[in-house]
Amino acid sequence: MKNTQVIDQRFAPVAELMESFAAEDPSYSGQLAIYQGGVLVLDSVVGQDSTPESMTGVFSCSKGAGAMVMALLVQEGILDLAAPVALYWPEFAAGGKESMTVAQLLSHQGGLPGVNGGFTQEELIDSRLAASILAATTPLWSAPGTYSYHALTMGVFMEELARRAAGESLQSIFERRIRAPHDINFYLGLPEALEPRFLPVLIPEGGEPAPFIDPYSPLGLALNSTGGFDGPQGPSFEILEVPNVRAIREAGLAAIGGVASALGLARLYAAATTGFVDEAGDEHAPFLTPATITAVSQDQVYGIDRARSAPGAFGIGFMKAHPINDFGSAWAFGHDGANGSLSYADPAYGLAFGYIPARGEPNGTGSRGGRLSVLTRQVLLGG
Amino acid sequence: MKNTQVIDQRFAPVAELMESFAAEDPSYSGQLAIYQGGVLVLDSVVGQDSTPESMTGVFSCSKGAGAMVMALLVQEGILDLAAPVALYWPEFAAGGKESMTVAQLLSHQGGLPGVNGGFTQEELIDSRLAASILAATTPLWSAPGTYSYHALTMGVFMEELARRAAGESLQSIFERRIRAPHDINFYLGLPEALEPRFLPVLIPEGGEPAPFIDPYSPLGLALNSTGGFDGPQGPSFEILEVPNVRAIREAGLAAIGGVASALGLARLYAAATTGFVDEAGDEHAPFLTPATITAVSQDQVYGIDRARSAPGAFGIGFMKAHPINDFGSAWAFGHDGANGSLSYADPAYGLAFGYIPARGEPNGTGSRGGRLSVLTRQVLLGG
Amino acid sequence: MKNTQVIDQRFAPVAELMESFAAEDPSYSGQLAIYQGGVLVLDSVVGQDSTPESMTGVFSCSKGAGAMVMALLVQEGILDLAAPVALYWPEFAAGGKESMTVAQLLSHQGGLPGVNGGFTQEELIDSRLAASILAATTPLWSAPGTYSYHALTMGVFMEELARRAAGESLQSIFERRIRAPHDINFYLGLPEALEPRFLPVLIPEGGEPAPFIDPYSPLGLALNSTGGFDGPQGPSFEILEVPNVRAIREAGLAAIGGVASALGLARLYAAATTGFVDEAGDEHAPFLTPATITAVSQDQVYGIDRARSAPGAFGIGFMKAHPINDFGSAWAFGHDGANGSLSYADPAYGLAFGYIPARGEPNGTGSRGGRLSVLTRQVLLGG
Repeated sequence: MKNTQVIDQRFAPVAELMESFAAEDPSYSGQLAIYQGGVLVLDSVVGQDSTPESMTGVFSCSKGAGAMVMALLVQEGILDLAAPVALYWPEFAAGGKESMTVAQLLSHQGGLPGVNGGFTQEELIDSRLAASILAATTPLWSAPGTYSYHALTMGVFMEELARRAAGESLQSIFERRIRAPHDINFYLGLPEALEPRFLPVLIPEGGEPAPFIDPYSPLGLALNSTGGFDGPQGPSFEILEVPNVRAIREAGLAAIGGVASALGLARLYAAATTGFVDEAGDEHAPFLTPATITAVSQDQVYGIDRARSAPGAFGIGFMKAHPINDFGSAWAFGHDGANGSLSYADPAYGLAFGYIPARGEPNGTGSRGGRLSVLTRQVLLGG
Repeated sequence: MKNTQVIDQRFAPVAELMESFAAEDPSYSGQLAIYQGGVLVLDSVVGQDSTPESMTGVFSCSKGAGAMVMALLVQEGILDLAAPVALYWPEFAAGGKESMTVAQLLSHQGGLPGVNGGFTQEELIDSRLAASILAATTPLWSAPGTYSYHALTMGVFMEELARRAAGESLQSIFERRIRAPHDINFYLGLPEALEPRFLPVLIPEGGEPAPFIDPYSPLGLALNSTGGFDGPQGPSFEILEVPNVRAIREAGLAAIGGVASALGLARLYAAATTGFVDEAGDEHAPFLTPATITAVSQDQVYGIDRARSAPGAFGIGFMKAHPINDFGSAWAFGHDGANGSLSYADPAYGLAFGYIPARGEPNGTGSRGGRLSVLTRQVLLGG
Repeated sequence: MKNTQVIDQRFAPVAELMESFAAEDPSYSGQLAIYQGGVLVLDSVVGQDSTPESMTGVFSCSKGAGAMVMALLVQEGILDLAAPVALYWPEFAAGGKESMTVAQLLSHQGGLPGVNGGFTQEELIDSRLAASILAATTPLWSAPGTYSYHALTMGVFMEELARRAAGESLQSIFERRIRAPHDINFYLGLPEALEPRFLPVLIPEGGEPAPFIDPYSPLGLALNSTGGFDGPQGPSFEILEVPNVRAIREAGLAAIGGVASALGLARLYAAATTGFVDEAGDEHAPFLTPATITAVSQDQVYGIDRARSAPGAFGIGFMKAHPINDFGSAWAFGHDGANGSLSYADPAYGLAFGYIPARGEPNGTGSRGGRLSVLTRQVLLGG
């Protein structure tokens, strides 16, 4: 309770919901931060594990940070969404991928969720290696409009496009152009000096045994089930433990290697869309223009995911809201993470939102993050 | 019971089903009318509220009337489905919509389910105002094949295309070319003189509270949740009360402003497809040719609706049947309404069907209208 | 039990699962055969009805045999998947089908699941007659990417393309080029001499009455509900009895007329992909090249089936695995049948798999065939 700052009293019900999670479940802990109109209106940390200073793995919320770099390159004319990928990355023109556009690749339409045999951790960390393999790979499908969530390879694509188009690593662009100037607690590559602030992702206990996922199916490939990460229990261990491996968070993989606080998640989206006022009272203008926001946040694909047989919607790298993941309006864009984390901007409300639970939990409609998002909007609607 | 005329005894089981609704639920009241091969074979009115003379709001069944006007214009070469919308409506060539075709727009693929901020009742009633706003709007998506049900703006599109292509209001064309010559009890714009026959839509009581629909989500935009209608309880009141507002039914919005009896619904579809024999024994030839019927009733889009994450199928303005809304064969076309009303022609059976409950109820497979439709076809199949 | 040969002990758990079906349900009987790396590793026959020699109807597994013929013609340059169907079949250029490609037609995108009025048994057996009707038919839809399972007409298309492109019947090509040289117990046209080995499909008793399927709906048309087969109980009898009609299995309709043993199903897919070692120890090289396998097994379409509102995935004639039918990896291709039979190759595992129950049972994820497939792969994964 004492760590909750309700800066704008309209959001007191949202703080109460956050606190009710800890009251109902003593093992619960988490962070929530909300900007509205560029002003921090709520900053809440509850439970025994999270602290205002702690940062933890945010899994696929990392893709939102990577997509912000892509958006900057689009804004500056360095990357053309309508161009073929091969314009920047000539080796990609193999296996029938000659005319695939940057927009298609960055909206999960590439048919390259993984490769037969999987990637080693080394190939994912030095993603030039994974990119080289993917460039030579024939897509699993060429059916127009078919897409599936590229859980890991999306990061490889974004990293390779940054290298090829901008001549600089995605992580470096993110740090130099986005994170550092706005003092955002969201790292793609957590510095050694900040390790004391890292809170390892807590693993939920029990639960039903998962159904068999063929490691060579589109979903198994997307999860890199036949390759894997070199964790304490060997390769291909529990996905929730991935950011607990120092090498992963040191590399800051754009797919799943980010480390952040909820305040960092929210500030990233505020910095991009509304701008924000920092702790010293200084104003930061938004780093994306309205035209760029439209270009990267408009739906590129909607439908039933080939790998999961469930609906999904994507812009350029960013997730879009829909009934199964109802985090916002038609204009909202962001990303959630496998641990139940959630981060987005919603231009219809002037919102920037960040949520991170200490222990892995579900995401999507009805999850804790989803309920906090709904209540936040209801508050603004004056419901 | 006394109001049921079973003109063709094969349909006695359908009349019995209709009467069973009232027997099982004393608060139930409704109308059902069926033409087969151009002949009225069943005309049933049951319960305390509906009468043979009463007409009530038919919600989106109104879109079927609007689509009949579009079909006439297509038949006469006034409207080319393959042409860009902007050929008729130059201001529409904005926001990336330059090449969007009439067929795409009229099959819910426009990505314009609503606008941020919503429409006022005035803008919807004088739909030139709503059209002007939509012309300038960037679609929510440009993903090929993505569609979502344009609950209100579909009426604006049809009205504007009538004005632009034919130089006459949709309502005037409907009255002059379709309704009056066939003496159809289906009005887009109920005359003051017929107000005594208007039965206000009865509102069901109780039920589960609805889940939150973000007013800025594709579904919220489609329902105009941020704008609204000026009802007795203020703007954005219960959608089932919309036709109870005189201004709405006076304007006869092609989206949701129609007022009809079940006999009117059925006769519209008979007049279009099979022709029909009127009360005086005069024969009316069908006003649509087989080629026109194919052009407007063939599927234009099928898939998971972007706004609702549920399957849907549409031709040009008309709904098509599918497992979730099983009102007919592959050739059936029509529309249902938010109050559970149902209207369609099914060329595979020579059927024209109209159903209106006095009190709002569900629509789709398994609903009362859906069950009546299934039984009607089973009767004809000799099951 | 005595009919089960576990040639490779790794597959003992799969044999045990097969035997457990008979132990739990005394009325159960079936065959299972598995090749891995071209070697027969398991051949199991359990229960009272099936024998090692028996063959029975395999329903749509027949389409896999037909698709193998299409693959051969593609491999030899006789059939070009990217060409319009009308190049080979000029009469097909009617009803808006001028530019429809062979790949679209053979991946269930043709919009021709059936015809109004249905086909007679004669028209399906002499499929030149059905083909002639289909050539003149306007597709039910022209919406890009829309597909629905063409349960019967897919066989007509494959048979007509074989006649037109190769000048020989599909059944003759299958016999001469595929079945005979590899001694495969899978017949498209069961010779009279082999009738003693035919085990009629057993019909399950009881169960819930099926929901109404409009015979003129896309699903009803696909099932030829308004036409039918001339069975012992007259036309349009229970679909599971179709192969029990001698005329059907004599003709060997590529859609549903095949008769096989599980060993025959598995050997077909081994012969195509890995090659195999026969009983005499002779090695047979695979009859498809890797390039052909990619061409015919890559996804052509994925999405919600127009007729069933459920997800599906297809290559060229072949089914692809997905979460609702989880028979294999992203590279697996094959077909299942209405009686619960299952046949496929999975190049990711070097597998060829055949399963046939004596009595009709469900197919798809969680079915007996599906469970055997999952366990087979788990064994190879060393789980």
